[in-house]
Amino acid sequence: MLISVSKIRVLYADTDQMGVVNNVVYLRYFEAGRCEWLRAQGRPYKDVEASGLMFPIVEANLRYRESARYDDVIDVRCGPAELRAASFRFEYELRRQGDGALLCSGWTLHACTTTAGKLRRLPDDILSLLKQS
Amino acid sequence: MLISVSKIRVLYADTDQMGVVNNVVYLRYFEAGRCEWLRAQGRPYKDVEASGLMFPIVEANLRYRESARYDDVIDVRCGPAELRAASFRFEYELRRQGDGALLCSGWTLHACTTTAGKLRRLPDDILSLLKQS
Amino acid sequence: MLISVSKIRVLYADTDQMGVVNNVVYLRYFEAGRCEWLRAQGRPYKDVEASGLMFPIVEANLRYRESARYDDVIDVRCGPAELRAASFRFEYELRRQGDGALLCSGWTLHACTTTAGKLRRLPDDILSLLKQS
Amino acid sequence: MLISVSKIRVLYADTDQMGVVNNVVYLRYFEAGRCEWLRAQGRPYKDVEASGLMFPIVEANLRYRESARYDDVIDVRCGPAELRAASFRFEYELRRQGDGALLCSGWTLHACTTTAGKLRRLPDDILSLLKQS
Repeated sequence: MLISVSKIRVLYADTDQMGVVNNVVYLRYFEAGRCEWLRAQGRPYKDVEASGLMFPIVEANLRYRESARYDDVIDVRCGPAELRAASFRFEYELRRQGDGALLCSGWTLHACTTTAGKLRRLPDDILSLLKQS
Repeated sequence: MLISVSKIRVLYADTDQMGVVNNVVYLRYFEAGRCEWLRAQGRPYKDVEASGLMFPIVEANLRYRESARYDDVIDVRCGPAELRAASFRFEYELRRQGDGALLCSGWTLHACTTTAGKLRRLPDDILSLLKQS
Repeated sequence: MLISVSKIRVLYADTDQMGVVNNVVYLRYFEAGRCEWLRAQGRPYKDVEASGLMFPIVEANLRYRESARYDDVIDVRCGPAELRAASFRFEYELRRQGDGALLCSGWTLHACTTTAGKLRRLPDDILSLLKQS
Repeated sequence: MLISVSKIRVLYADTDQMGVVNNVVYLRYFEAGRCEWLRAQGRPYKDVEASGLMFPIVEANLRYRESARYDDVIDVRCGPAELRAASFRFEYELRRQGDGALLCSGWTLHACTTTAGKLRRLPDDILSLLKQS
């Protein structure tokens, strides 16, 4: 289930000469959402790394729907979608505050690794945190 | 068929605290490649826009393979993959110069629209340019 | 007088391999602050542009003090500093929430132009808005 | 003396809705130039870091002159300008290839520190490399 975790104001620096948010920027918005989702579950990503684990992205998919524009407020909804032993998928839906228009949806697939980059099973506490939601 | 169109030197600003190129940066590298591919075919994207057309990205997919690092030179190979009446898919393979390691692969799906955003059939000259390659 | 207008959470994408926020990112934080300052005065920059004016940056200065790190919350304080007929200077102070450490200070100098780029005197209403603060 | 070290093609992602390169992007171009300048002297920055030193930016100044646009090729000229015991200033001039228009000039002030962030005198070999140019 996706929950609303973050409101992001579009910067001028995020737009391009088409007058809309450039495609490369959405992965930043995804990160902001993912990071706030983890914090909302009481496990900021900083603590995950402090515990010796990392969740590097191994694949990402973005579907650009309607254009976001300068000064729009983007409501980032996200949440975990698929759990495996050493990886999980995270889903995103970005809507414009106000008219609720769907701007971008997508997902990121994350491995669970040690900080040295070695694949590792998701620890039970993180697994249950990802499951319950 | 993918052709090598661009060599990109990784900047310090492209890395993150994991010591590798951050995931958001690869869509920039994709754009650099796509833009040089079009130029190599004699049709820079600037000329496409000057003719009243745009190729906005409607979907993107990235598979992160090995980590790129500061000062690596990335060899961007790309080319068109699937042609429809008013859209086309573009594929990418990014390899590290030197050891040839595959760093990232993926694709972007583009619509053909007027600069006002209205869907339009790909003109014959662009269609044949995308086909022959 | 600088006022606190924006709290920004540092993204992973903002850091570099030194483990700190990369120098190029602070101009984004400056923009976020400037934009919220104008909104707080009841004149969002979007409305400025809708009225046919722009405030392009003609010079910028940044002094990097202490390093900001991933997940820090940055308190952006800013405000106008020097008013001339067709330009104004805006000042910034970025502090880490929590310990209050000064991370970066600086200023941006803005021209007042038409959207076609022609220099123009600052209108009275904007002048008084910049003055009173 | 500034030397030409790098040609950079402006990406669509570098532009903003004003139709020009956004102000935050130039610090990336500065980095690209600085990095190539060091390489041209036979001392890539990667080797500097491998030797246990870093040159973090402590201050930056940018003067935006004429607007750079999508697909412009930017000729980055740069070089060292002022040497002190534990710091040096680096200057930049960015011109558009073709008409030679000055787009942006500026400088960055760098400290010399250990990778742990401790200030250190510039080693003799780097000092003489910065001096001779």
